Amino acid sequence: MKISRIEHLGIAVQSIEEVLPYFRDVLGLEVYKTETVEDQKVKTAFLKVGEVKLELLEPTCPESTVQKFLDNGGKGVHHVAFKVEDGVSEALALCDSKGIRLIDKAPRNGADGLHIAFLHPKSTCGILTELCEE
Amino acid sequence: MKISRIEHLGIAVQSIEEVLPYFRDVLGLEVYKTETVEDQKVKTAFLKVGEVKLELLEPTCPESTVQKFLDNGGKGVHHVAFKVEDGVSEALALCDSKGIRLIDKAPRNGADGLHIAFLHPKSTCGILTELCEE
Repeated sequence: MKISRIEHLGIAVQSIEEVLPYFRDVLGLEVYKTETVEDQKVKTAFLKVGEVKLELLEPTCPESTVQKFLDNGGKGVHHVAFKVEDGVSEALALCDSKGIRLIDKAPRNGADGLHIAFLHPKSTCGILTELCEE
Repeated sequence: MKISRIEHLGIAVQSIEEVLPYFRDVLGLEVYKTETVEDQKVKTAFLKVGEVKLELLEPTCPESTVQKFLDNGGKGVHHVAFKVEDGVSEALALCDSKGIRLIDKAPRNGADGLHIAFLHPKSTCGILTELCEE
């Protein structure tokens, strides 16, 4: 697998509005885009730090996996997304061959126009891991 | 505060040796340095993804805060470290003035030759946050 960089960090929050003053007034970061991803039942806000996006994830309903993460005591970083240069399908095939548990067996559409697939945290050092390509 | 980039992600692991095959053989990342930080009671291994370091953190004793994090069910990303361009002392003063709870009231020496200070996750969206400068 050829990973070029961390594409984004997904950060679970109960309310984007409530945490924005911290990101804006303390860390000095600006939201440059918001987007609702119906498929994942989240509202998102994007900020940029160097080459990495911070993707704030606010659940839009109780059934959202992000809401479940928060309800189960999860806080902060929800997932780490790596940008792969040799294709998500190829990366998934490699992962499968190495015994990594896949959440997505094939790439699907994610936020921000990306093709994405998730790996299960049981296989990835406890980190919900997303592979993505533009 | 002027943050230029994510300096590193601290990743808590029970054993660096056990997780290395995932980072090396699946993600294709190489360890370029290891270091024991007596002060923080951790053994560290550094890998690079784009401009961001991944810092694997293995506790060296039961009293290590990383061991406590793992014992309390913590998994994966232990902290996020931002590189500040206008000085950690100045950043801490700003945080203090904004009501952010500080773990370190003044910068101290961290791994990899950095000056660092931690902010309390209660004030930082649930993410244990490190500010650092070279």
